[in-house]
Amino acid sequence: MTSGSGLLVADLVGVAVFAASGASAGVVKRLDLFGVAFVGFAAALGGGILRDLAIGAVPPLAFADWRYPVTAVLASMAVFWLHPTLNRVRRTVLLLDAAGLGLFTATGTLKALAAGVPPVGACLLGMLTAIGGGLARDLLTGQIPVVLRSEIYAVVALGGAILITVLHTLGFAGPLPLVGAAALMTGVRLLALYRRWSAPVAAP
Amino acid sequence: MTSGSGLLVADLVGVAVFAASGASAGVVKRLDLFGVAFVGFAAALGGGILRDLAIGAVPPLAFADWRYPVTAVLASMAVFWLHPTLNRVRRTVLLLDAAGLGLFTATGTLKALAAGVPPVGACLLGMLTAIGGGLARDLLTGQIPVVLRSEIYAVVALGGAILITVLHTLGFAGPLPLVGAAALMTGVRLLALYRRWSAPVAAP
Amino acid sequence: MTSGSGLLVADLVGVAVFAASGASAGVVKRLDLFGVAFVGFAAALGGGILRDLAIGAVPPLAFADWRYPVTAVLASMAVFWLHPTLNRVRRTVLLLDAAGLGLFTATGTLKALAAGVPPVGACLLGMLTAIGGGLARDLLTGQIPVVLRSEIYAVVALGGAILITVLHTLGFAGPLPLVGAAALMTGVRLLALYRRWSAPVAAP
Repeated sequence: MTSGSGLLVADLVGVAVFAASGASAGVVKRLDLFGVAFVGFAAALGGGILRDLAIGAVPPLAFADWRYPVTAVLASMAVFWLHPTLNRVRRTVLLLDAAGLGLFTATGTLKALAAGVPPVGACLLGMLTAIGGGLARDLLTGQIPVVLRSEIYAVVALGGAILITVLHTLGFAGPLPLVGAAALMTGVRLLALYRRWSAPVAAP
Repeated sequence: MTSGSGLLVADLVGVAVFAASGASAGVVKRLDLFGVAFVGFAAALGGGILRDLAIGAVPPLAFADWRYPVTAVLASMAVFWLHPTLNRVRRTVLLLDAAGLGLFTATGTLKALAAGVPPVGACLLGMLTAIGGGLARDLLTGQIPVVLRSEIYAVVALGGAILITVLHTLGFAGPLPLVGAAALMTGVRLLALYRRWSAPVAAP
Repeated sequence: MTSGSGLLVADLVGVAVFAASGASAGVVKRLDLFGVAFVGFAAALGGGILRDLAIGAVPPLAFADWRYPVTAVLASMAVFWLHPTLNRVRRTVLLLDAAGLGLFTATGTLKALAAGVPPVGACLLGMLTAIGGGLARDLLTGQIPVVLRSEIYAVVALGGAILITVLHTLGFAGPLPLVGAAALMTGVRLLALYRRWSAPVAAP
């Protein structure tokens, strides 16, 4: 999603973390090894595939660069075999997931802007890059997507995408605003987890 | 989906109505404010996004023209706050939904034909423009899509798409056949609701 | 998916078989005639639509060539009316489904390679061509996709896609390797059914 090798590493960390979240959901639903790997793949790369289709970047990165699917599948398999010990590292996983949220939103928004998508659409696509994988994971495992039901998650992505679009429009370029916005999103997401913030539900 | 400003208004009315139907489903499922807005967005714009991807119109209108997502989100938020009073206007919503069905089918079919899709494919894409949002709404809220289970809904869209394709092939151009076909679809849909028509189910 | 008329016939057989599997699921879920036809369409052509979008072949074959959707709908309607007698031909349906698995994987992988997708991505897209329709069928009828839960199915497709990619890279061209790989996949799938092979599930 970015050219710098530092950012490639960060990107692949995001892929691995989201794949792990998908694979965990697959293990809970008693899917077989292939099913766990597939849900991990969809959770890690589904949002990016949707973004790439929407901006006309074909084939999507998930099919064009082998490091993305291989990272997703390896992370899923690690969860498949190691999941009994994963509860002990649950806090680490939540931290990495928050980092993935920030990174995917940042790279997704910038990629859409670079492809000429107008600001409002770029914000939506940046957010979809971050939450699309979680939507795919929950639909494949037969659940109403958690991102629609509770927790401040997508709203952090949307806010971060707007911030990045504003910075981009004001002419800030280079990796610094991107990294800053990603770090801010990660921080807000962790704060929302810690303080148990949630969005309002309609009155009955 | 069309250039005329009168038709833009009609288009946005369709977006608002379909968003309201999605948002209502989200409120019933106790989604939070973001979830309600997201399901409203998907219900209003999911069919058009699929059509635009299929005809290579990237980025899809939902991301290229800010008026579409903003209309969808505003309509969803109105439902979120006003839904207790919406039961009183249920007949109005059904009327507007029938109008949206006719309009989305008409503009979707014509857009596919204009992009060079052959007749059969254009009819399918016109129908998918109209029913795709409802499919997305029901999948996101964990239901088997209602359009597959009961009521004459998609069949009206398919019949209207065929009529529009025939008119287009015969050389009828301009807004009149389009408006006429949309009105006819709306009328048949309302008649189907009023007479409780439904498609057959297979013998057990 | 291929130009030879022999392969077109084989392709349409695959479409008909996958449509029949989707329509059967729709009948079981008590969908109406339209719903049965729609799930049949999605099961037969959903995987190919995803592949065509990913390689930039717009409009997808399902909309560009009327023989594909018409075959899917006719097969679905046949199931709608004849399903009480279908149990007697269940073995035939499983045989045809295994043939469809082999054929769709073979043509999907080659089409992706021909569009310039790198090897790993082409294997994934070939597999998705074969299993995407079953995923759509199960999501539309409210089930966790069976291909993720049990049976050796997707793994056969992935193995066949890898074999075809290797043959293609080694310079084997023409219909013979394709037909051979498709036949091999069909055979392995039938053997997996007969021996009740299944992939491992994670330890609790």
